[in-house]
Amino acid sequence: MPNHFYDRDIVSIKDFSKADLEYVFSATDKIRTMTPCERGELGKGRTLGYIFYEPSTRTRMSFEAAMASLGGSFIGISELKSSSVEKGESLADTIRIIDLYSDVIVLRHPMDGSSRFAAELSTNPIINAGSGSEEHPTQALLDLYTIMKEKGGIDGLSIAIVGDLKYGRTVYSLLYGLANYRVDVHLVSPPSLAVRKESIYDVQGKLKIKEHNELGDVLAHADVLYVTRIQRERFPDVQEYEKVKGSYTVDSATLEKAKQDVAVMHPLPRLDEISHSIDYTKNAVYFKQAAYGKELRAALLALMLNESPPL
Amino acid sequence: MPNHFYDRDIVSIKDFSKADLEYVFSATDKIRTMTPCERGELGKGRTLGYIFYEPSTRTRMSFEAAMASLGGSFIGISELKSSSVEKGESLADTIRIIDLYSDVIVLRHPMDGSSRFAAELSTNPIINAGSGSEEHPTQALLDLYTIMKEKGGIDGLSIAIVGDLKYGRTVYSLLYGLANYRVDVHLVSPPSLAVRKESIYDVQGKLKIKEHNELGDVLAHADVLYVTRIQRERFPDVQEYEKVKGSYTVDSATLEKAKQDVAVMHPLPRLDEISHSIDYTKNAVYFKQAAYGKELRAALLALMLNESPPL
Amino acid sequence: MPNHFYDRDIVSIKDFSKADLEYVFSATDKIRTMTPCERGELGKGRTLGYIFYEPSTRTRMSFEAAMASLGGSFIGISELKSSSVEKGESLADTIRIIDLYSDVIVLRHPMDGSSRFAAELSTNPIINAGSGSEEHPTQALLDLYTIMKEKGGIDGLSIAIVGDLKYGRTVYSLLYGLANYRVDVHLVSPPSLAVRKESIYDVQGKLKIKEHNELGDVLAHADVLYVTRIQRERFPDVQEYEKVKGSYTVDSATLEKAKQDVAVMHPLPRLDEISHSIDYTKNAVYFKQAAYGKELRAALLALMLNESPPL
Repeated sequence: MPNHFYDRDIVSIKDFSKADLEYVFSATDKIRTMTPCERGELGKGRTLGYIFYEPSTRTRMSFEAAMASLGGSFIGISELKSSSVEKGESLADTIRIIDLYSDVIVLRHPMDGSSRFAAELSTNPIINAGSGSEEHPTQALLDLYTIMKEKGGIDGLSIAIVGDLKYGRTVYSLLYGLANYRVDVHLVSPPSLAVRKESIYDVQGKLKIKEHNELGDVLAHADVLYVTRIQRERFPDVQEYEKVKGSYTVDSATLEKAKQDVAVMHPLPRLDEISHSIDYTKNAVYFKQAAYGKELRAALLALMLNESPPL
Repeated sequence: MPNHFYDRDIVSIKDFSKADLEYVFSATDKIRTMTPCERGELGKGRTLGYIFYEPSTRTRMSFEAAMASLGGSFIGISELKSSSVEKGESLADTIRIIDLYSDVIVLRHPMDGSSRFAAELSTNPIINAGSGSEEHPTQALLDLYTIMKEKGGIDGLSIAIVGDLKYGRTVYSLLYGLANYRVDVHLVSPPSLAVRKESIYDVQGKLKIKEHNELGDVLAHADVLYVTRIQRERFPDVQEYEKVKGSYTVDSATLEKAKQDVAVMHPLPRLDEISHSIDYTKNAVYFKQAAYGKELRAALLALMLNESPPL
Repeated sequence: MPNHFYDRDIVSIKDFSKADLEYVFSATDKIRTMTPCERGELGKGRTLGYIFYEPSTRTRMSFEAAMASLGGSFIGISELKSSSVEKGESLADTIRIIDLYSDVIVLRHPMDGSSRFAAELSTNPIINAGSGSEEHPTQALLDLYTIMKEKGGIDGLSIAIVGDLKYGRTVYSLLYGLANYRVDVHLVSPPSLAVRKESIYDVQGKLKIKEHNELGDVLAHADVLYVTRIQRERFPDVQEYEKVKGSYTVDSATLEKAKQDVAVMHPLPRLDEISHSIDYTKNAVYFKQAAYGKELRAALLALMLNESPPL
């Protein structure tokens, strides 16, 4: 099979067909079996350039570690304060310059459409590392890969997504990715943080989606609990926040009411929404998820940088 | 020809003879024909250490990308706030330490003479990445290389330098470099931002220099339009700034009055002084200029790090 | 001899037996004789991850340069402001994540016990790069190595430690390390900055320790003058600070009263406590000390990353 990802931009998870997803997952399986020495040839002499208009240490380090494992280098801007961006330079010029200095570009930007715009300007491929309110395609890929690995497949599962469903771009990207599978989705949030309907318009026909306000309503049947952070800043009233926070926390008591093999996931960083007390249970897969993420990003970079299928 | 640049400090463009310039340009030509694999041997196991007392993301990334392409590593200080410098350490001590940790040092510092001082202290070679009000030798080298490549040579050209000619160190370095060639130089600026006469005393005998206040005066004959940023902070009066800004902008209308093959250059980042509308014309060479810059810096580093001529 | 340091955490200098110290020193001797090419194999394909909860450019760069010399990569967090830590993430989670992305972790943290805690959580080995009020084990190792190299051995020496002995963790780590040798220790400080007795309780039986308030009291006999920074912030009264500062400065006059071959050391960065006028004397070993530090850290990393003794 030819490598469709060679020199291809990763802008939106919506651009991925099911075959695309499977190709990336299979490449990730393969890269995980390679020796460090073999991996170290896949990005040798190549440079990843990153630009983070919003700080994201975790995502940046995941890409850096992935590129390092391929034998490549990385350069970039993670601190906007010290960069030309402060001098008022346009996104277009910043992209064009990093394009000259690197072989693949990783971009995080607060605006919707920023990555599409960047992809049109740059000669080298772009990876959207989070943009606007909806897109974080590599997070969605690693979430799907984690579900597949931990549950043995995705079709037929009941997946509960819990927390702040209104503001987290991770939630939307995951829903767009899940639309390629036959799954039941349960969205659990306080009413004020319910999913934005206009943003899931496209996938509503493909997914069976139910909304809930109580975590208890979904525990008995969920195969996956995908938990997201609830941020105090979203609430006008601190008391309301405290109430909500408590009722969505996943802890030992929660697990007792859940399916024995439920997989608890989280895009991290977490605050109190998952109790540290369950970190060592077999249900806790959120750290595995981050580990898979590094491997999947390494596989994706290897595919993008090498024409003949390297994996 | 022996490699005169092995272990040599790059402190001032004034230290470069015409033969030196041609040696570096020829090395740049050669490195551009090498495979990534061949280049990756030239800096293998070597480390570039950088210290930026003024932030300059662009220059830093250009050097990092250059060093990465040679197979080398880079470490350094780009954020003074988090460094020992804040604890009051002297420049001398900071240089001595980075000297112990690296094989070549890249220094940006606001004071004139800082690089010369650093070169005397360090055992490893220093590259001045911008100092004081006059010196930015690698910028001058890449500017000259760009003119040579884009115009097929430098002798005989008419070169207009436009914008803030008083405060930009790039302008002075370029003038010192151009003094090795037979060129007509036209300096175009508002009176309050005219070139500092005392800083070009040395080159006035070697260059034919004319000063102008209107861009229109030079358009018909200029082979190169070298545009620099005009910063609001330089003007006591905002209205004066707005007037000047407008009258020095290079856009489609400007190009219509210029020579058909005029090369528009800019050290970047730009604000409004070059309209985005001309980015895709053949006259726009400012991004090419940045790309040449990375290659020239890679060639220079390769020469400095390897005794027998690597290029 | 088997490599006891493979996959071992470096949490406290107190964990080092005399045999351990000698093993590390011997490995440092060996790595210093290796060619860059040989060294470049020892960390190939491996990644160092660092987390600095307190900024320390110098220590960070020393580890980066050491890892680069082994052919490895490094990623990490040196600027807490831009990291997840700001979002309130726990140290535990931050450690777990960097553990997934790297092969060895370097941690600097203000709290006592932080590295021990991190070592229990991580699967990869931890290096304590400074924690709490007492521990900075790699600094102690490089200090001991420097004394050994410069004085031909440690047993039998008279070692004066001068300056702020109350707040500097370096002082305590060095004392714990020295406890493995037969040395006379002279502690010289103003009364308000005297060593904390409770922190040297363990080593008081093993070391002959005398306290002084005047530098003059120890000059005639000291083989080593280990000088530390005295910080203005420690003094409620500026006049008191100025008086103390002056009386502890090591300069040419000081050297005249000292043993001819006294070795002057400093963990750096220094302010005025050592005069620049003695930088070029044979007594000044503080820069050599930093250079040894990079080599010792490279040796330690090579031991930790490679099971069969690489050195």
